[in-house]
Amino acid sequence: MDKNKIINDPVHGFIRLSGQKVFNIIDHPDFQRLRSIKQLGLTNLVYPGALHTRFQHAIGAYHLTTLALETLILKGVEITEEESEATKLAILLHDIGHGPFSHALESTLLQHIHHEEVTLLFMEKLNQEFNGDLDLAISIFKGLYHKKFLNQLISSQLDMDRMDYLKRDSFFTGVYEANIGSERIIMMLNVMDNELVMDEKAIFSIEKFLMSRRFMYWQVYLHKTVIGAENHLVKILRRAKELKQNGEDLFCLPNLLPFLSKDYSLQDFQINSNLLNIFAQIDDGDIYACIKQWTHHPDKVLSFLSKNLLNRKLFNTKLIVDKSSSLEELEIIKSQVAKDLNIPLELTSYFVFTDEVSNTLYNNQKQPIKVLTKSGQLIDFDKLNDVFSSSIMTQTLTKYFCCYPKNYQTTF
Amino acid sequence: MDKNKIINDPVHGFIRLSGQKVFNIIDHPDFQRLRSIKQLGLTNLVYPGALHTRFQHAIGAYHLTTLALETLILKGVEITEEESEATKLAILLHDIGHGPFSHALESTLLQHIHHEEVTLLFMEKLNQEFNGDLDLAISIFKGLYHKKFLNQLISSQLDMDRMDYLKRDSFFTGVYEANIGSERIIMMLNVMDNELVMDEKAIFSIEKFLMSRRFMYWQVYLHKTVIGAENHLVKILRRAKELKQNGEDLFCLPNLLPFLSKDYSLQDFQINSNLLNIFAQIDDGDIYACIKQWTHHPDKVLSFLSKNLLNRKLFNTKLIVDKSSSLEELEIIKSQVAKDLNIPLELTSYFVFTDEVSNTLYNNQKQPIKVLTKSGQLIDFDKLNDVFSSSIMTQTLTKYFCCYPKNYQTTF
Amino acid sequence: MDKNKIINDPVHGFIRLSGQKVFNIIDHPDFQRLRSIKQLGLTNLVYPGALHTRFQHAIGAYHLTTLALETLILKGVEITEEESEATKLAILLHDIGHGPFSHALESTLLQHIHHEEVTLLFMEKLNQEFNGDLDLAISIFKGLYHKKFLNQLISSQLDMDRMDYLKRDSFFTGVYEANIGSERIIMMLNVMDNELVMDEKAIFSIEKFLMSRRFMYWQVYLHKTVIGAENHLVKILRRAKELKQNGEDLFCLPNLLPFLSKDYSLQDFQINSNLLNIFAQIDDGDIYACIKQWTHHPDKVLSFLSKNLLNRKLFNTKLIVDKSSSLEELEIIKSQVAKDLNIPLELTSYFVFTDEVSNTLYNNQKQPIKVLTKSGQLIDFDKLNDVFSSSIMTQTLTKYFCCYPKNYQTTF
Amino acid sequence: MDKNKIINDPVHGFIRLSGQKVFNIIDHPDFQRLRSIKQLGLTNLVYPGALHTRFQHAIGAYHLTTLALETLILKGVEITEEESEATKLAILLHDIGHGPFSHALESTLLQHIHHEEVTLLFMEKLNQEFNGDLDLAISIFKGLYHKKFLNQLISSQLDMDRMDYLKRDSFFTGVYEANIGSERIIMMLNVMDNELVMDEKAIFSIEKFLMSRRFMYWQVYLHKTVIGAENHLVKILRRAKELKQNGEDLFCLPNLLPFLSKDYSLQDFQINSNLLNIFAQIDDGDIYACIKQWTHHPDKVLSFLSKNLLNRKLFNTKLIVDKSSSLEELEIIKSQVAKDLNIPLELTSYFVFTDEVSNTLYNNQKQPIKVLTKSGQLIDFDKLNDVFSSSIMTQTLTKYFCCYPKNYQTTF
Repeated sequence: MDKNKIINDPVHGFIRLSGQKVFNIIDHPDFQRLRSIKQLGLTNLVYPGALHTRFQHAIGAYHLTTLALETLILKGVEITEEESEATKLAILLHDIGHGPFSHALESTLLQHIHHEEVTLLFMEKLNQEFNGDLDLAISIFKGLYHKKFLNQLISSQLDMDRMDYLKRDSFFTGVYEANIGSERIIMMLNVMDNELVMDEKAIFSIEKFLMSRRFMYWQVYLHKTVIGAENHLVKILRRAKELKQNGEDLFCLPNLLPFLSKDYSLQDFQINSNLLNIFAQIDDGDIYACIKQWTHHPDKVLSFLSKNLLNRKLFNTKLIVDKSSSLEELEIIKSQVAKDLNIPLELTSYFVFTDEVSNTLYNNQKQPIKVLTKSGQLIDFDKLNDVFSSSIMTQTLTKYFCCYPKNYQTTF
Repeated sequence: MDKNKIINDPVHGFIRLSGQKVFNIIDHPDFQRLRSIKQLGLTNLVYPGALHTRFQHAIGAYHLTTLALETLILKGVEITEEESEATKLAILLHDIGHGPFSHALESTLLQHIHHEEVTLLFMEKLNQEFNGDLDLAISIFKGLYHKKFLNQLISSQLDMDRMDYLKRDSFFTGVYEANIGSERIIMMLNVMDNELVMDEKAIFSIEKFLMSRRFMYWQVYLHKTVIGAENHLVKILRRAKELKQNGEDLFCLPNLLPFLSKDYSLQDFQINSNLLNIFAQIDDGDIYACIKQWTHHPDKVLSFLSKNLLNRKLFNTKLIVDKSSSLEELEIIKSQVAKDLNIPLELTSYFVFTDEVSNTLYNNQKQPIKVLTKSGQLIDFDKLNDVFSSSIMTQTLTKYFCCYPKNYQTTF
Repeated sequence: MDKNKIINDPVHGFIRLSGQKVFNIIDHPDFQRLRSIKQLGLTNLVYPGALHTRFQHAIGAYHLTTLALETLILKGVEITEEESEATKLAILLHDIGHGPFSHALESTLLQHIHHEEVTLLFMEKLNQEFNGDLDLAISIFKGLYHKKFLNQLISSQLDMDRMDYLKRDSFFTGVYEANIGSERIIMMLNVMDNELVMDEKAIFSIEKFLMSRRFMYWQVYLHKTVIGAENHLVKILRRAKELKQNGEDLFCLPNLLPFLSKDYSLQDFQINSNLLNIFAQIDDGDIYACIKQWTHHPDKVLSFLSKNLLNRKLFNTKLIVDKSSSLEELEIIKSQVAKDLNIPLELTSYFVFTDEVSNTLYNNQKQPIKVLTKSGQLIDFDKLNDVFSSSIMTQTLTKYFCCYPKNYQTTF
Repeated sequence: MDKNKIINDPVHGFIRLSGQKVFNIIDHPDFQRLRSIKQLGLTNLVYPGALHTRFQHAIGAYHLTTLALETLILKGVEITEEESEATKLAILLHDIGHGPFSHALESTLLQHIHHEEVTLLFMEKLNQEFNGDLDLAISIFKGLYHKKFLNQLISSQLDMDRMDYLKRDSFFTGVYEANIGSERIIMMLNVMDNELVMDEKAIFSIEKFLMSRRFMYWQVYLHKTVIGAENHLVKILRRAKELKQNGEDLFCLPNLLPFLSKDYSLQDFQINSNLLNIFAQIDDGDIYACIKQWTHHPDKVLSFLSKNLLNRKLFNTKLIVDKSSSLEELEIIKSQVAKDLNIPLELTSYFVFTDEVSNTLYNNQKQPIKVLTKSGQLIDFDKLNDVFSSSIMTQTLTKYFCCYPKNYQTTF
């Protein structure tokens, strides 16, 4: 094994990996599987470049964490080599629990268990395999370690996770105006009272970072066609599961089968360790391979939805302002769909439906950004900033929308 | 349908699509399938960013062709709107015949038919569907149309295909020093005697373009780990086919099945039009989904190779300089492998083998680059250039290499 | 003369210039002089890359205006060729009245006349030289032409001037996170009721644009060392003028001399047309050449300040929060300086002084940004946006600061 | 003084400076003067972005040298902290002897002394001021230090000087296809037998680097309009010197005066230490300020040339292929110019003249690039490479050209 390994990353340039424990994790099949799971799911249907994977993101976040640790050490913060390595292992693994099309999967096949719980299952499994190599990493990841700032590098309002994904998502979507200055922000990190803090002169960079995040939310993450596509996938998986559980004949790849047939809980995963191994076999390609077969299924709902997704005949997705009048129109569309597809009215909810998305720019409850003023005080960023009035920055914004097939019309 | 459609491309920025015929092609399932076929196959195992698809490349080449046509028109070259649209349709479709992991597939499942022949099959199929909309495009693509330069925009030593893929591959691999100045080159295009030519001051840009191509060949396209991975896939598909044709039980997705079971010729495709439709269903994900199932197959060769590819335990790939001594060492490895895996010696050729790759920097036979001197003469680029002596530039370079499993050793 | 001229711009790529009138302006000495006037004055003392000139900016703004006009025409807005050319001429000339170190000059040598008035003087002079070629351009520039939106492309809260300078300043300073999506914004321009408007989906881009502007203000334009340097230059020029007007012997280049000797008004420029020609001779290099000579002047104030600027021994610049205590400390420094330099106390105001800078993010009075909602209404951007509460976005922010020589200390 | 200082460089990003000796050099007036000396002289007349200075380049080369030293240390090469610091000081100072418009100046005002000799004069002067701080740096710079590879980082066919200027010149001219992979090349540096060598797998990167260099030569450094402009400046300075030495009245800034009046030798500089101080006062702006005054001079040659340069009415510059016929035509133009300007025929050599430029892609005599093969041999790059036949790569290419005023015509 090389003492150093270089990865050529279009976002950060050359990334140097080092340390046997790091190599062990990266070479492990559970980590390699992230190569086949896209970071942004179906977003590539709108932004064709958005094909980057959770593998790339994990490596990128590792890189930024390395830079951040170096900066802190240079500023005199005490961090041992073990702590440094453990923090890097923790960030490498922070998203390992994600399955393909994570959001869609979590609302269908994996309803009762959250990807963060799966992440911990993987971490513990790997820790066993590697004889406790991950003890400290897990402790830091869980926020149990006394040097709280190490956890905050991995999980806070300004963590290396966000720092990488914003930059990376902006790069691969081509929405380059959301490019953030991760180097500048990292340079201004510091530690005070065991907390990760930012120097005062960083406030404009933080502001800029939050605005880029906001921009990415509206231009990419919550783009209505993307939302529509994700719901499209949810409907397909729900229908497939329904058919399966009704005992109908349905093509399914063996690794996906258990999750279509039954609803598993966290407890199930804990009792039956094989379940995690099966889950680890599923990637984006499997979901698509099944959907491709389902285009020939006799169930009209399933085949119609499957064909449309594959051929990118996505739903019309519209924001709803006036609820009652919109719902009325949607009822009319439902009856048209029922007639056109010759299906019972109740099944039209697979084609015509409403939903909501929401987003909070800044969560001042969960690991808020602390700013270290020149006079030595620690102040929460949202109390310091003069542009975003705190209530706006921290309030949750919710948008209601509806979806219906492309060839139908609404007036709103 | 919008009169204009904008695609956000990280490589070229905003790409404007226009025209109903263009929309018809792009929205067609046969074209949409290119979204699931990576441009560079398994290269992402070495350069993790190389996940871009043939869909993106086709759109990018369309964009550069649009720029080139605009430039020529501005320079006074006569091009009608119909010719312009047909050229754009032709470039959009120039690679539509590619299947997943094209090179590997063509040497296994699709041995008797070349992707360019498949491209023509698709073009003719679509032309029928769209009532002759592609007549002119096909004529240009085949080089039959009297304005020869339109064909040369699509297929020559300096065509818009190469212009896009070099730039795009360089971008997504992160090998940014191979970035070419496509804008500069396009600006210097001209037409003389119905031939696409370059202004004389372009010679340094052409040189630079050829060197970038050479650089990409050695750093990416012929990177030995990439070559090893492609051969790895070839071995898997060959073994699967062998097992299938020997009547063994083998998981296979329905769309892949016919091609594992039988060898089809171009004639078969022409007679049975459904064959093309089945072929059109296969993408990268299907191949991977099958390989994943094959990891559990009782045949050791298939399962071992499959597991290794999925977990990125790739072959050691080495250049061979001294053939005889190298072959001797490989024979020793073969017997070790036979022993270690407990398989007959003859099957070790799936694990230990040699092959060759070759590359010609510049083909002065096939649509050579013509340079228009200030004095009005047309000269072949390779006769004009003072750096590359013609023989070196146009000679075919061949390298021999061998592959063997990671945990074995050679001295060369 | 070429029918087309291409300029290679690192920010926008190849810029195509066309039209005889455009060539006439660009080739004119009054325009060529902009090559020697830096866009950001002394900012390069903090950001060494910030050496780009008003020439580059004018060409860049011309380019974006060309794109904007093309977009509007494509959307069906009626714009004749004459109007298009005139708008481009107007943007080319929009900053021609700037002298070297504009802000410093306007508060010293050119106190009674604003650079926008000088711009009009130049435009009228050139219009005469070119026999009325600029009639329409001037009318558009002044906002007199009935198609108001053409003027708004040149001068409004979202004009092509800002669109270029933000992108350019961000590029050359290396503050790349302030990179704006000018292409995206331009694509969403429209015209309604003769006003330049933005499509509703543009609001996040506008927001992003305003935030980039804010970011550049605090990181670059109002960077305290930059502010200190500009004040440094002001002090030098004031002292030189004072000495000159007191009849002291002082080296001065002939083209700068009149402006050191006398205060001219707009009327003076209008009466004596030669004054503009002399003014047109001054560039950044002349100011520096004089300062270099002044380092040897017997007046200690002038020589000390001059030497310090040349050798980048800039003032300490600090924000003032508590005014009274700060002023007290500054008085102490003044007396130290008087003693150390052996100068009268009254002259220490050249070395120790306070000033203020202010900035308004968005001026909702002057050509506000109008947004065209899907329902067809025109709404002012600041009334629509949900992040910036209107008062914060439109309020003027003022900061007080002080400067004093580097080797002195304050406690605040 | 900060323990660390960060400079924001648009080319390399954040550059960290450290060490008191480094700060001392950077803050010194002799180094600060490089802020006013453009790296590429008059090239901005063709590529308007090419305004970057020798200051930026020195800082950039320092940065790459820091990276290279870190890489070598990581690979186990023994380099002490003193050696590392000295190498960085040497690269910081490697170009300090350049005056404004170096090439033009060296063939006019500073005919008998080369900028590299001036560099050593500056180094020794600074070494005295800083009490021997530069002893080791000077020894390394001169190639006297036993660790030869340290000198090769500063001065060889693949030194950090070239590595920075190629990347920087490409960036600011906007000729981005000449962007080199300095990071990749630096990563492949090694030391063998006290010599700087490259790993074998670097040969394509070296090739690419040489081709970028070639590309920059023909597109930028030897661009014919740039060559014409430099000759234009040479003619102005020669005429001014001639007039001055003939005793004519001529405006001249005091710091330029001595060099117009007399020809100094290296010995003069060594004897009269003040001469270097005067030389250190001259920058780009001074030359331009003088030329501006000379536009009013009664000598027609001087005023005409000066006006033309300022207003960018540059010479027509053409390559000469057929010498005798071209010279004939030029004689005709000379007599026309004599008549049109009413000057004696002999003075027309200021307006109509020939010259030559030459370039060697790779000098295999002067510190050739050594490649370390896998078998442990050291081979000269030009003997290894299979593309460039050695003779072509190392031969000197010379082009002949002529200049004449814009409004005259030739047939060649």
